[in-house]
Amino acid sequence: MVKFTEINSKTLHEYREMLLKRYEDFKSQKLKYDMSRGKPCQEQLDLSMGMMDITDYKSCDGIDCRNYGGLDGIPEAKQLFAELLEANPDEVIIGGNSALNMIYDTIARAMAFGVLGSEIPWGKLPKVKFLCPSPGYDRHFAICELFGIEMIVVDMNSDGPDIDAIEKIAGDDETVKGIICVPKYSNPDGITYSDVVVDRLANMKTKAKDFRIFWDNAYTVHHLFGKGDRLKNILMACKDAGNEDRVFIYASTSKISFPGAGVSAMAASKENINSIKKKLSVQMIGPDKMNQLRHVRFFKNMENIEEHMRKHADILEPKFLAVLDTLSAELGGKEIAWWNKPNGGYFISLNTLDGCAKEVVEMTAEAGVLMTPAGATFPYGKDPRNRNIRIAPSLPSLDELKKAMEIFCICIQIASINKLLLEK
Amino acid sequence: MVKFTEINSKTLHEYREMLLKRYEDFKSQKLKYDMSRGKPCQEQLDLSMGMMDITDYKSCDGIDCRNYGGLDGIPEAKQLFAELLEANPDEVIIGGNSALNMIYDTIARAMAFGVLGSEIPWGKLPKVKFLCPSPGYDRHFAICELFGIEMIVVDMNSDGPDIDAIEKIAGDDETVKGIICVPKYSNPDGITYSDVVVDRLANMKTKAKDFRIFWDNAYTVHHLFGKGDRLKNILMACKDAGNEDRVFIYASTSKISFPGAGVSAMAASKENINSIKKKLSVQMIGPDKMNQLRHVRFFKNMENIEEHMRKHADILEPKFLAVLDTLSAELGGKEIAWWNKPNGGYFISLNTLDGCAKEVVEMTAEAGVLMTPAGATFPYGKDPRNRNIRIAPSLPSLDELKKAMEIFCICIQIASINKLLLEK
Repeated sequence: MVKFTEINSKTLHEYREMLLKRYEDFKSQKLKYDMSRGKPCQEQLDLSMGMMDITDYKSCDGIDCRNYGGLDGIPEAKQLFAELLEANPDEVIIGGNSALNMIYDTIARAMAFGVLGSEIPWGKLPKVKFLCPSPGYDRHFAICELFGIEMIVVDMNSDGPDIDAIEKIAGDDETVKGIICVPKYSNPDGITYSDVVVDRLANMKTKAKDFRIFWDNAYTVHHLFGKGDRLKNILMACKDAGNEDRVFIYASTSKISFPGAGVSAMAASKENINSIKKKLSVQMIGPDKMNQLRHVRFFKNMENIEEHMRKHADILEPKFLAVLDTLSAELGGKEIAWWNKPNGGYFISLNTLDGCAKEVVEMTAEAGVLMTPAGATFPYGKDPRNRNIRIAPSLPSLDELKKAMEIFCICIQIASINKLLLEK
Repeated sequence: MVKFTEINSKTLHEYREMLLKRYEDFKSQKLKYDMSRGKPCQEQLDLSMGMMDITDYKSCDGIDCRNYGGLDGIPEAKQLFAELLEANPDEVIIGGNSALNMIYDTIARAMAFGVLGSEIPWGKLPKVKFLCPSPGYDRHFAICELFGIEMIVVDMNSDGPDIDAIEKIAGDDETVKGIICVPKYSNPDGITYSDVVVDRLANMKTKAKDFRIFWDNAYTVHHLFGKGDRLKNILMACKDAGNEDRVFIYASTSKISFPGAGVSAMAASKENINSIKKKLSVQMIGPDKMNQLRHVRFFKNMENIEEHMRKHADILEPKFLAVLDTLSAELGGKEIAWWNKPNGGYFISLNTLDGCAKEVVEMTAEAGVLMTPAGATFPYGKDPRNRNIRIAPSLPSLDELKKAMEIFCICIQIASINKLLLEK
């Protein structure tokens, strides 16, 4: 393919005419596809329906899961999630159906009461800042924004966030209380943090004594191609570094079993867990134990979870390949868009030419394909270069996906030509 | 029976000897009964097992309940809970498995962000106070204490809390931001607020413009004897008074279906609901929709819920009667203890002679019967007269209950004699 920058204006005009015709043609079909969120498709949800047959209600220690109690989860759920989170059962708290909700709760408690070792609740401080590797997860940024936590954009490199910048900022500024990130198959870049990045996060000096890493390990077993990436155990790394209270780790079965009816969990040092449980005992009596039991009886152990995830991958792999193939076929070599090929997770992250993302997403929406809003992958919804777009291939069918991506690629080309012609 | 105050010291000594013999006899049996919490018994939990057979996952509007979405609940759950809460479906938010957790969340949000109409987050004010009708629910008080909300004890009368006092304090003091209470079959007194009390709460002038009533209607359909009490609709009363944003109403199926795996909900004015939903959309994606569907499919409508509650009453009524009978037989006429006969709810509230409650609960515990700690029914765990004890008859079997109450009555008599002899 020819680089767009090397094509003359006349040819660009003609090419745009042709693209606009294709675009109008799609528009007239009044399509309605949703690629805005990392939402599993029905086929994936069907994989876990066996769980619905479980009507048992006694946990291994004889507790009636229908009744009150079990603040931090039933023993077998803590055991299973300890394996998933790579921690000990007494370093685990089981939550409701959402890890995001657990993250919100942890931050809300930190604002109201501080964390273990805080001298003052974060909400009583004149300023609290978080490091936010970006592009990142919009819902993380929304929580920070709601609590008035100032977000500092940290660039993403191919091995994780810019660790030099993180060390410098966290080391210099005591108002920087945390970092919030998806360390494996990052949302949206699909990047897994390297061992070096994990170790430096665990070992770095932080000016704030109560600095916390919010480690949203949402895609820990969500491989797409082959064996998948390996992420170094940060709780262990923090212990080795003598900073065992530094990290809060989160995961859930939202994209293992059911997004609307899964089980979430967090892991942290025993000291952290005990400190949280004291507050938690006022907040609630305990999350849904029947759903914990349902999950434990269905999955039983990590091997079964891994096998179950291969079935998810069987459904998702062709979808990701379809996106990647269409991107290559339509945009390859044109030097107007760059994208990653993730080994897992739920997204493909694409960068357009600077300044084109918003236009692309708007045009795509007008043709009936809903993408994540441009800018959403950055704090405050502001992508400084207006170029990043998150592609979520999981929900549409393969046929819909191919069509949607064709439209998307047409829009990228039109927006790129618009920009290039303006600059000529 | 003879009043204890009219018995001479010698006879009291002899009677105490006899009671201590009975006490030691029970103690040697090494019993282990739990009457500390309002926990349903297994027979009650079995009533809802039909719910486990429901494997449907489509809501009435075609939403796949297994997937993400549904911040405020599926339409049919909102409809059913609107009836339970006596509100419109658009005045309802469905929660997770715990109304207590929804109350905590509402207060946590009020502290962090204020409520609709707040000029400043409550947590940024130098002082926030709540009116706390007492005896009351210990977990309400624990939430207030955690957030540093100063609790003002309001006495309970037979028709609800001392409304004169409430009007005066709420009308005079702008740091008084709310009242938290169980208005029907109150915990622990079993009192249902009269229409006059409800109306005066809805109509009273409050110095704080953003005053809120936290109306924990936990026992709205939890009748024990006969038709049960009727509670005036406070949302309607607030609307009639032009104070429609004043009240937050909570309920759950914890004591209808499963305490550990039920569904909770709150109701409030549409303005309140919209204001809450804005924050909630950052807090979570949505509570467990599969469990909502399970509940709606199983209960279908309010009539079935009422019928289901009669089955609960069939199990609970004999237990409450056993407690009441034992209390009458052992303590009647002695003028050392006074208790209520509730028409519903989960508790019988008993007052000993001033200063005896702690001793009674400790003695009872030593004989293997765990009661709610004395003082727990008051803010900060401090019963100013050290006399109130909450009896929770639901969990033990009828035989266990009779034995437990016999022990309890022995302890009350011993503690009373100890007190009377000291005073002689």
